Formats: sequence, C-alpha cells, structure tokens
Amino acid sequence: MRSLKLTVAYDGGRYCGWQVQARGATIQQTLERAWTKVTGERIRLTASGRTDAGVHALAQAVSLETSNQLPCDVLVRALNASLPDDIAVLGAAPAPRGFHAIRDAVGKRYRYLLHDGPLRDVFASGHAWWVFQRLDTDAMHRAAQSLRGRHDFCSFQSAGSERATTVRTVTDIFVERRPLDGAADPTTSGGRIVLEIAADGFLYNMVRAIVGTLVEVGRGAKGEEWPAAVLAAKNRRAAGMTAPPQGLILVSVEYPSPPAVAGDETAC
Amino acid sequence: MRSLKLTVAYDGGRYCGWQVQARGATIQQTLERAWTKVTGERIRLTASGRTDAGVHALAQAVSLETSNQLPCDVLVRALNASLPDDIAVLGAAPAPRGFHAIRDAVGKRYRYLLHDGPLRDVFASGHAWWVFQRLDTDAMHRAAQSLRGRHDFCSFQSAGSERATTVRTVTDIFVERRPLDGAADPTTSGGRIVLEIAADGFLYNMVRAIVGTLVEVGRGAKGEEWPAAVLAAKNRRAAGMTAPPQGLILVSVEYPSPPAVAGDETAC
Repeated sequence: MRSLKLTVAYDGGRYCGWQVQARGATIQQTLERAWTKVTGERIRLTASGRTDAGVHALAQAVSLETSNQLPCDVLVRALNASLPDDIAVLGAAPAPRGFHAIRDAVGKRYRYLLHDGPLRDVFASGHAWWVFQRLDTDAMHRAAQSLRGRHDFCSFQSAGSERATTVRTVTDIFVERRPLDGAADPTTSGGRIVLEIAADGFLYNMVRAIVGTLVEVGRGAKGEEWPAAVLAAKNRRAAGMTAPPQGLILVSVEYPSPPAVAGDETAC
Repeated sequence: MRSLKLTVAYDGGRYCGWQVQARGATIQQTLERAWTKVTGERIRLTASGRTDAGVHALAQAVSLETSNQLPCDVLVRALNASLPDDIAVLGAAPAPRGFHAIRDAVGKRYRYLLHDGPLRDVFASGHAWWVFQRLDTDAMHRAAQSLRGRHDFCSFQSAGSERATTVRTVTDIFVERRPLDGAADPTTSGGRIVLEIAADGFLYNMVRAIVGTLVEVGRGAKGEEWPAAVLAAKNRRAAGMTAPPQGLILVSVEYPSPPAVAGDETAC
C-alpha cells in the first residue's frame, strides 16, 4: 500500500456536492468509479473538505491509499480519460504514509464570484451570484478587513457542523472588481466581483455567510462596521444570508512542507 | 404596429439552437413565450441568424412587429423577469418601419474560444473547444490573414445552406492567446485562445469550418499556406473539420446607420 495525493478540479454545477450519497451523482462517487475502472481496485477517497452541491474547485486535495503501482503520470492520464468533462485530475503525487487530506490540511483559500447590475450575465449563471444592485466593492473590502486575524467565527457558521472549536485565523481577505474577460458580455453595465479569503480552516458555510454579510454592506443596507459587530455577536442570526453555492470555488489547500507532499508533479 | 429591435444575450448550452422546432427548447421559442407572457400578444421574432444548438450570443439582433405600446425600458425589465438565467434582453429600441434582422444586416462579428494542452479546463467545457495538443497561435494568426478580403468561401460552407452567392468579404480576422481570467484554472498548462472574425455575412458553419482548418495549422498538421489553398479549391472537402458548436459566440451584428437603428437604448 502507498499513500497518494490527487489534485482535482471540478465544475460542481451538475453534482450533488463532493460526498457519496444515495441519490444523485457526486464528485467523490464519479472519481471513485473512474479509479475502479482504471485500476480494478475499489477505494475510498478523502477530500480536504466536502464541497456542497454546486460548489466548484480549482485544486481540491484528495488523499487515498492504494496497492496499485502505476506511475502517477499514467494514472492521471487514465483517470482523465475516464472522467466527464467537468472533472479533471490535475496531478497525482506520492504522499507521506497515512496522509489524510482533511486532518493534515493547514490552510485553505476560497474565491467567491459575484456580478452586479440590472442585467444578468448569461454566461455567469452557474459560476457567480448575480446581485441586481450595484455593489460598493471598496466598502465591502474595507469592511472585510475586520475579519482578518484570529476570531471566533461562530456567527458565520451554519447548522450541521461538528467542529470542536469555532475559532479560526483568517490570513487574507479581499474584495475587488475585475474587468470582464473576453468571454463575458461587454455590454452589461456591471462587472465581475471577486472575493478571496484564506484561513487555517473554515466552518460550515463560513465563506458563503461572510459573502452574504459583505453584500449587505456593498448594497448600502449596512455600514462598514457591521461585519465586526456580527463577529462580536457570536450568533448566526446576526449575520447576513448565506450566499448561493454556485459562486464558491475552492482555490487551494495547503499542507505542511516537511514531510514533503509535492504539489502537482505527475511523476511518482 | 411598430418595429422594434431587441438585443439579446444567451448561453446556448441548454438549447436546440435559435429556431423554433418540434422537439426541444429553443431560444426563439423561449423569447416568444416570454413576450406573450408580458404583452398577451403572440408574435414571431426574427434573429440576424439562426445560431445552432450550443452556440452562444453576446448581442444577437432580433426584429419584431408589435402593436404593444409599452416603453422599451419596461419591456426589457419585464422580459428579463420572465426569462431563464441563460437568456437576457440587453436592450430594446425602435427600428425603422419594416426592419428585418436578417435582410438588413450589413456585418457580423463572431468569436470562437479554444483551450489547449493536456489538461482540460473543467470550467470551459460548455464554452470552448478543448484541443489536446499545444497550438501554435502565431502560425494560426498568420495563416488566417489569407482569408481577409473578398473571396468565394464555398470551401468553408456546410450543406444545408441556401445562399444565392458564396462570396463574402472578411474585414477582420485574428487569433491570439489570452491569459486565463480569475475564474479559470491557473494550474493548467495551456490557455485560452480567441479567434475573432468579422465579415459582411457568413455562410452556414463558415466560422466553425475556418476554425477547424486553422487548428490543423496550429497543431502542425498543415502549413501556414494551407487555408489559402483550401479557399482556392472551392470544395468543402478540402477544408478541415467543422469545429464543435460550444466554442462559438455571435458577438455583434451591424446595421446601416441611417435610418438610425439605435444600439442598446432602453428608452423608446
């Protein structure tokens, strides 16, 4: 047996989230079936976190134990040939014995995409939250800075979580308006808004609750000091709505450097 | 009765093309039903061209005759409220009496998106053609320049067309590699490739046949002089394959300035 780390990208739009469940296709199930097809072996995959239905990943980290000895680059090519267009294995690499994608993670980065203005962007419907009002992204960015650092984030946690502590450290958070890329609609009056947040870990729906709260600031319903007050209230009902899933993207997952868990090397 | 011009954006992924047909939802049908819901009136819409299944539009031009007298901005808001997320009316404006979106068009611009490299971009699957090989976009751009100007493009026309002449004038054509935007996967080795082409008119599947031909040059299977030879052959079998529909976007449609057909004004 050996431990491997897979790096996986997916568009979650067609899936009922990461975790295997009775009804509906999931990312985990689709990947496990591809693994079985390629290797003949039935295994269980563990992702760094169980993304919800509709949530995407640029580089989800997945751990597994296997007796298969195929070279990693061969595994990557064979898995990708067996996977649908909206899931791709970006890399496979040897991991320290017993590597566990959830337990060993020391940091994660999420991105949330919004677009605003009276006209919806028809190309963004599965990948962004459309807010009708024009949002003040500078106010959102300033308000977000109060969430930096080590805090009890229980106001930004949805029910259904089982974490021992609700204290987390946010190491980076920003909100910015970006010009539309070539594929988007140049005639819409609004634009794409990117929120990114990095922390040592996240509570259930924490990013989406933070986004819902910052949007209240952006549309002028709440002042810039409000997110700090929500944090201090330690009460989920103090925060804004949970933003919809389709705007959320898991960007990256960090693991301790020594013992080395190589990034996206495809040769084992 | 008055003539109106609608400007419409759509993600064609879920639709069987523009034109109403017996089976499957179409853009035309969805728009006509929204119109009836808003105005109580049954009308027929005419688009500047009948985009195929899976093809998108940033600004399709649509003509109609109506006895409805609602202000254009009210029509736009009401139509958008009745349309699904992947279709949006960007504007409505009065048009000269008898305005006809196909007959009156004097130019069109299309964009085609590709991405290349060994790893697919999971976020581009419905909006780009993935080519496994790395493409030489500089060679594609140089080769494309031979298609500029007035030529008989019958080598780049699919069967099913009924045009009186196959001579068209290409006024702009370019191929370029663009950096991936924030939403795309930064870890993939390839990138997004944009091909744009403007002409006074297009034959059936002309853009997709040109793209399929230029990709043969980009992957090194054919030399840069080949597209000129295909043009000269005046034979569809001389050209490359028809590129798949999901990479194709109708960018804009041009009409003569006088008598004025206003662009995206929403106030009539």
